[in-house]
Amino acid sequence: MKLNIAVLAGDGIGPEIVAQAQKVIDAVSVKFGHEVEYTNALVGATAIDQVGDPYPEETHDICMKADAVLFGAIGDPKFDNDPKAKVRPEQGLLAMRKKLGLYANIRPVTTFPSLLDKSPLRLDIVEGSDFVVVRELTGGIYFGEKGRSEDLKKAFDTCTYTTEEIERILKLAFSYAEKRNKRLTVVDKANVLATSRLWRETAQAMEGDHKDIEVDYMFVDNAAMQLIQWPKKFDVMVTENMFGDIISDEASVITGSLGLLPSASVGIHTSVFEPIHGSYPQAAGKDIANPIATVLSAAMLLESLDLLDEAQAVRDAVNKSLEEGVVTEDIARDGKPCKTSEVGDWLADFI
Amino acid sequence: MKLNIAVLAGDGIGPEIVAQAQKVIDAVSVKFGHEVEYTNALVGATAIDQVGDPYPEETHDICMKADAVLFGAIGDPKFDNDPKAKVRPEQGLLAMRKKLGLYANIRPVTTFPSLLDKSPLRLDIVEGSDFVVVRELTGGIYFGEKGRSEDLKKAFDTCTYTTEEIERILKLAFSYAEKRNKRLTVVDKANVLATSRLWRETAQAMEGDHKDIEVDYMFVDNAAMQLIQWPKKFDVMVTENMFGDIISDEASVITGSLGLLPSASVGIHTSVFEPIHGSYPQAAGKDIANPIATVLSAAMLLESLDLLDEAQAVRDAVNKSLEEGVVTEDIARDGKPCKTSEVGDWLADFI
Ligand SMILES: CC(C)[C@H](C(=O)O)[C@@H](O)C(=O)O
Ligand SMILES: CC(C)[C@H](C(=O)O)[C@@H](O)C(=O)O
Repeated sequence: MKLNIAVLAGDGIGPEIVAQAQKVIDAVSVKFGHEVEYTNALVGATAIDQVGDPYPEETHDICMKADAVLFGAIGDPKFDNDPKAKVRPEQGLLAMRKKLGLYANIRPVTTFPSLLDKSPLRLDIVEGSDFVVVRELTGGIYFGEKGRSEDLKKAFDTCTYTTEEIERILKLAFSYAEKRNKRLTVVDKANVLATSRLWRETAQAMEGDHKDIEVDYMFVDNAAMQLIQWPKKFDVMVTENMFGDIISDEASVITGSLGLLPSASVGIHTSVFEPIHGSYPQAAGKDIANPIATVLSAAMLLESLDLLDEAQAVRDAVNKSLEEGVVTEDIARDGKPCKTSEVGDWLADFI
Repeated sequence: MKLNIAVLAGDGIGPEIVAQAQKVIDAVSVKFGHEVEYTNALVGATAIDQVGDPYPEETHDICMKADAVLFGAIGDPKFDNDPKAKVRPEQGLLAMRKKLGLYANIRPVTTFPSLLDKSPLRLDIVEGSDFVVVRELTGGIYFGEKGRSEDLKKAFDTCTYTTEEIERILKLAFSYAEKRNKRLTVVDKANVLATSRLWRETAQAMEGDHKDIEVDYMFVDNAAMQLIQWPKKFDVMVTENMFGDIISDEASVITGSLGLLPSASVGIHTSVFEPIHGSYPQAAGKDIANPIATVLSAAMLLESLDLLDEAQAVRDAVNKSLEEGVVTEDIARDGKPCKTSEVGDWLADFI
């Protein structure tokens, strides 16, 4: 098979971690006899600096032509504390999501036995947690009309959702529940928000077609609590964009393996695979960032192209590296931590 | 002094827990020579059932005339899964907040040494956590225009904020930081939302007048993570209504003492004191609910009326009851747990 992968390394540690995922994809391709073509493209602060646009048209064209997109990270602190900045790296991310129709962000949250003592939660609470957060990614308050009054003293943001948008993501969430433990938690704030009531109504209407799935509804404030108190009770959680942003980030730290968690953003045109952690500007260029989340994102990428054995080979290599302690300093236990590039080399060799 | 307290017991366990707080206020009044007059008023599902309105005009009048309001809890599951219910208990809460001008919800999050092993977090992470969440309570998406399109297939909610609203709550948050450890974390999503950018700009403009306070800015998704990873680093957090709803509930479970945490909603006309936990309908009428959060809310109430020794007497009694194990089943260690009413009696006796 010939794979055509767009590579959007982005900012901060993006280039370093993406390079390791490429090594791994290369190794898998050699082993299974595939041919891979990478096309690099600009995104984020890097793209602003070079061409003045965080998601340039050229990058979009490259993504549209690709079988899948491998994404690093974006964000640069120089934009964060300047509320008046005209263009922000994050706008590139939002533009990409919208233009590629990346309507669903999928985040599997799993525990790694050897890392459980890195979890901020007590062992008995976190051990065995295994769930997926499905976040709507192209609707809601992020994409609604927003602005400032003329005297600048009043600002507004609008959250909108349509039945179609909600049905599309719920369908995907039901299908994950179907493949997993048949439980779906719809997270909303239906006691206050009109959009949440539409979410709840729509989900309730779909329950009849999924009688084997146990559906429950949880207010977002309650979900934020229960995630910490009883993470094991969740199987698939589905929610709107903003709640999903908060809930999925909260979920990502409970296992102690933030640096290891991958994500997929499922799109209409193509899909994007990226680590859930950020661009860690402080670590950029130091060859110390943990590449595993990006490598596991590459596994999700392979899986999405139906290369299941290939994906498994990547996961096996990762598990082995964790067992053997071939890891970066953030999760190193004792002995000498490896460099980012050394972990990538080891994984490629192993495969 | 003559105290005039409005009592809004509400739904579920509301009446039981409020009754214990009243016993404690009575005991304090006897001891310090005050006279207390309570005026009961309807709120929540109970008020819907009795008069068709979750915050009746009569209740509002009683609150307006009171020195302070002691509040139980509201909410009834019969309304939650009915997206078409015309009146909800929660609307009563929102109406009360708006009409009494309760613009700030204050939630001190403290740890109780004897309860630390109830925390879902590891001891070394949670021990010594001590911070306050200041949530804006009468603005944002909860109170903005909302609705449904004519064909019912599209819903919207609007979030708005004005500079005045933001300045008012930030001023209060700065004053808390002033009295505490001089650190203020402003939680927003300024990389995406127009309202958040107004929050950040406004806070930045106020920094100059509070040069002794160290201010930092944190995106809400990041805050949701850091609360679990490093709760000790926070001193005062301030944020808009919806983020505050999620963040303050998340914060409330990390110490393992959800049943013990009080809150104050500071208003223009009067202030409301209530436990942060809900109406636990499953426990209603069983005399098993933990009254401590409501009792500590009564302490905040006394404090707000400048009755500092009185407030301290209540806190001393609570600490003693925890030490001696005079507690309800949710936090009982061994031996026989006490009933809700027994805890109240013990505290009143002790005082
Ligand atoms: C950078 C930001 C716009 C983005 C979001 O909130 O969607 C990020 O936090 C994420 O979760 O991917
Ligand atoms: C019941 C609901 C409207 C309310 C809110 O979200 O404000 C509650 O969750 C709270 O936090 O007091």
